[in-house]
Amino acid sequence: MSEVVLTANQYGKAENRVVKITRDTDRHEIEDLNVTSQLRGDFAAAHTDGDNAHVVATDTQKNTIFAFARDGVGSPEAFLIRLADHFTGDFDWVTGGRWAAEQYRWTRINDHDHSFYKSGPETRTAVLVRDGDTDTMISGFYGLTVLKSTGSGFVGYPKDKYTTLQETTDRILATDIATRWRYNTTDIDFNAVYDDVRSIILAAFVAEYSKALQQTLYQMGEAVISAHPEIDEIKFSCPNKHHFLSDLSFCGLDNPNEVFYAADRPYGLIEATIARAGTDAADPAWVGIAGFC
Amino acid sequence: MSEVVLTANQYGKAENRVVKITRDTDRHEIEDLNVTSQLRGDFAAAHTDGDNAHVVATDTQKNTIFAFARDGVGSPEAFLIRLADHFTGDFDWVTGGRWAAEQYRWTRINDHDHSFYKSGPETRTAVLVRDGDTDTMISGFYGLTVLKSTGSGFVGYPKDKYTTLQETTDRILATDIATRWRYNTTDIDFNAVYDDVRSIILAAFVAEYSKALQQTLYQMGEAVISAHPEIDEIKFSCPNKHHFLSDLSFCGLDNPNEVFYAADRPYGLIEATIARAGTDAADPAWVGIAGFC
Amino acid sequence: MSEVVLTANQYGKAENRVVKITRDTDRHEIEDLNVTSQLRGDFAAAHTDGDNAHVVATDTQKNTIFAFARDGVGSPEAFLIRLADHFTGDFDWVTGGRWAAEQYRWTRINDHDHSFYKSGPETRTAVLVRDGDTDTMISGFYGLTVLKSTGSGFVGYPKDKYTTLQETTDRILATDIATRWRYNTTDIDFNAVYDDVRSIILAAFVAEYSKALQQTLYQMGEAVISAHPEIDEIKFSCPNKHHFLSDLSFCGLDNPNEVFYAADRPYGLIEATIARAGTDAADPAWVGIAGFC
Amino acid sequence: MSEVVLTANQYGKAENRVVKITRDTDRHEIEDLNVTSQLRGDFAAAHTDGDNAHVVATDTQKNTIFAFARDGVGSPEAFLIRLADHFTGDFDWVTGGRWAAEQYRWTRINDHDHSFYKSGPETRTAVLVRDGDTDTMISGFYGLTVLKSTGSGFVGYPKDKYTTLQETTDRILATDIATRWRYNTTDIDFNAVYDDVRSIILAAFVAEYSKALQQTLYQMGEAVISAHPEIDEIKFSCPNKHHFLSDLSFCGLDNPNEVFYAADRPYGLIEATIARAGTDAADPAWVGIAGFC
Repeated sequence: MSEVVLTANQYGKAENRVVKITRDTDRHEIEDLNVTSQLRGDFAAAHTDGDNAHVVATDTQKNTIFAFARDGVGSPEAFLIRLADHFTGDFDWVTGGRWAAEQYRWTRINDHDHSFYKSGPETRTAVLVRDGDTDTMISGFYGLTVLKSTGSGFVGYPKDKYTTLQETTDRILATDIATRWRYNTTDIDFNAVYDDVRSIILAAFVAEYSKALQQTLYQMGEAVISAHPEIDEIKFSCPNKHHFLSDLSFCGLDNPNEVFYAADRPYGLIEATIARAGTDAADPAWVGIAGFC
Repeated sequence: MSEVVLTANQYGKAENRVVKITRDTDRHEIEDLNVTSQLRGDFAAAHTDGDNAHVVATDTQKNTIFAFARDGVGSPEAFLIRLADHFTGDFDWVTGGRWAAEQYRWTRINDHDHSFYKSGPETRTAVLVRDGDTDTMISGFYGLTVLKSTGSGFVGYPKDKYTTLQETTDRILATDIATRWRYNTTDIDFNAVYDDVRSIILAAFVAEYSKALQQTLYQMGEAVISAHPEIDEIKFSCPNKHHFLSDLSFCGLDNPNEVFYAADRPYGLIEATIARAGTDAADPAWVGIAGFC
Repeated sequence: MSEVVLTANQYGKAENRVVKITRDTDRHEIEDLNVTSQLRGDFAAAHTDGDNAHVVATDTQKNTIFAFARDGVGSPEAFLIRLADHFTGDFDWVTGGRWAAEQYRWTRINDHDHSFYKSGPETRTAVLVRDGDTDTMISGFYGLTVLKSTGSGFVGYPKDKYTTLQETTDRILATDIATRWRYNTTDIDFNAVYDDVRSIILAAFVAEYSKALQQTLYQMGEAVISAHPEIDEIKFSCPNKHHFLSDLSFCGLDNPNEVFYAADRPYGLIEATIARAGTDAADPAWVGIAGFC
Repeated sequence: MSEVVLTANQYGKAENRVVKITRDTDRHEIEDLNVTSQLRGDFAAAHTDGDNAHVVATDTQKNTIFAFARDGVGSPEAFLIRLADHFTGDFDWVTGGRWAAEQYRWTRINDHDHSFYKSGPETRTAVLVRDGDTDTMISGFYGLTVLKSTGSGFVGYPKDKYTTLQETTDRILATDIATRWRYNTTDIDFNAVYDDVRSIILAAFVAEYSKALQQTLYQMGEAVISAHPEIDEIKFSCPNKHHFLSDLSFCGLDNPNEVFYAADRPYGLIEATIARAGTDAADPAWVGIAGFC
């Protein structure tokens, strides 16, 4: 039995649904988050002996999250940093951890002071991984579905005995944008950068004829890295949501790219990382984020 | 065995994902629907003897949907009427049916001619039930989540030995609006009425202090019925999405309606029908629509 | 405004997740339910005036559910009857309501006294609708996915200009069984009947060559109605989960019903009611149950 | 612009739903998988120039998967190896990739030759990452929900100003087991090892009083690593599914661990790796698997 060891581990409280209303004036503000806190450090005894002397209860982590929200959120990134500082500061054996948040978007109904609707469509994400003195902040979003009804094609690919796909220079290109970018600093206005990155990505999706979804993702990433020196790399994990042209010839109808069948599965899955030259290619903070190579 | 009979039945093809691009000019239009077709009529032999002579294949129903989209959609309601006319017209034994559609909302990216994002938040619905010469059209939407951060309370309710809830005159009121309304005609501009009903509902949500979600739903429905003589009744099925005030006294903090825990389950569930006086209260077209009493 | 009226309405607390452990001996029993309580009666003032004097709080309904579980559950049906008796008995203006439950299935791990795994696959359901002195109990289940790898075909259907489907006498037949049956009594052993109905349905699925899913559903229903005089009607709402034979001729391979593509959408949707002759065909308790015509 | 580079990337076809029926005799066998294929190698030109000369179409990858299933599946792991060998063998510029599968469990209905029900509860998983000459195979499962109604406690944890949790020596312990283990060889009977690992994990869950979910996960992992020399490490990502004791004192009832409220969110989240001593702690094949640190 002596050959078995505990290696990587973390624990905490996941998906704490915190809603913060700021009501300093009659014009309320709403911040709506889903916060997860997980601690790393010296927790071996809990695993090997059931000794909980180091185990800051997950219930305590939850209480801390709600108590900290009393002073405001500001941005999901700033809130995660406050949590990390608290847990690594107050408990000697907590040497790091992983804190994550999703934030949901609300918009005022008819510009009303205290009435809102959940507007989306995308969900904003933030992950902070702390390992001793090293912080890695990864922000992003998912759930932004975009579509071009023309201006996309796919030609020039290799053909083998298993190839049946026909080349096309006019197809629908549709995807759900899921992206995460890694900052090289935490000394920025996270909300402003978020809004700008989102705008850059949408503009790049529109700008050019797409020869492949790979090319479009690369153009998105290149634009973000070029515009934001505080971002070192950005990853995309995007389905190619197939819209198949309906063959209506069975009943004598043509179909000049007008009627499509939107398929569920299978779907193409294109994943790419665009980085600033010289960036370390294997930051361990990416481990555990689904669907990003 | 002679005592067993077949009663209500219907069959068809569900969830046909049709995307129609109108490209008459460079400024494309997109219509994105999920269409279900189900036939009713004389199908007893298929059930009792496996005799399919009357069974218009569900695959044929699918093909018909895509072929009909070649001529455009227009509105989900108009598209369903065309399908109903076809199936009840071409097959003697098809005496009615149920046709349903969801429509997803897309918005142009930066007002671009052929680039769109899926904007939601709500999904539009339409159901047409035809029974011989009688058509019933029920339209609606779901997935529009709204929240008031003040202007809502709950007092004056009966207390018994199982009551622990405290009265409040200042709480968060949040719900996912799901609504369906029944038309008394099909000779209208369905898209225009849809947009107006949606606006009326949002305006009513904002307008008044809410003494109960029941009251707010009634105000929404009253405003719709009053404004639209072509609508005879409207139903709501709305969760009371509880946002519980965090008790932060454990660490010495107050909480003047600023920090809330957004709960998942259980939730309140409030369902109400608001109708034009004299309307028949039990239209069978409502059967099979989940969550509406 | 005088023309607008409140008609059908109900309200309550949905999805109360109650787990009851019976630990009279070292060999524990577990009952795991999701219970919804909704009241009907004189609640007009809450809607029209925000007067909550009759509104038994949804929080109170929740508390009642958990308190009643202290005395045991027994069967979901029996538990719903106890709730209905309480609410209609204790509050004059509550003249009826709708109570519903799902129950999840657990199995002992290695026959252990107090360790279980969630075994499914199906989820059991029960709905009790009370209207004055009339009780309607509808039980059922959903989520039981079954498949026959042969012994199913589809031939003899009408062909029109939209028909492309080829006839077959050997295909995969697969469906998710969702069924609900209506009792004509509440004086039975609900757990025993449930187990027997489930067995009858599975046996009927296996027994015969299927000429159409309609035929198979009818055979299931006929067997249930014939065997259980306490059941007056049974409904099925079952997708035809298409498994399309892969055409592998592109690479020179045959495919004698060996390799299939399991499609998501669209799917066939077959719904049928099998009843005891003479049964009233339109019991209002069915309203609000999704997907059953 | 010269500073921007493409780093990690992969692409392919995700979620190919393959069902293989083996019908060599009247007693059919069913294998039901969801297969994803993603290629890695020299694909830079597709990203930077839209040059698809190296882009083996995702549609071609799909076709290959279905064609290969014609010769049988055997085990998800063996099937993934065949796919990897094909793609890295036939295309010079494909130097590796990531192939993944889920497999669903079916059980015969009444021991019938060709009728099955989907039995679960867990879904089996396999991931093969190939990088040049190095193969890493990670197998596992998710969705196995287990519960102990006693034999679990949580005491001895640190208390700070944010701690309100009370110690207990008798609580419900419930979790959804999600686990992945990494093999150090591919020369084994994957199906047999899978069944044995599953049995070991369930037996370890039952065996001992649990002082913390961390301890229970460690015991599971220790038992697996000790019994299976072909496995070098095993990871768990398991929610602590809280079952809160209902406080029924409001109506004068006691509650000796009989009635519980099963909460949705937040939940504890416990993740741990148990490894053979001397194992490399950061195999890159783990990147992209959600929820495992």
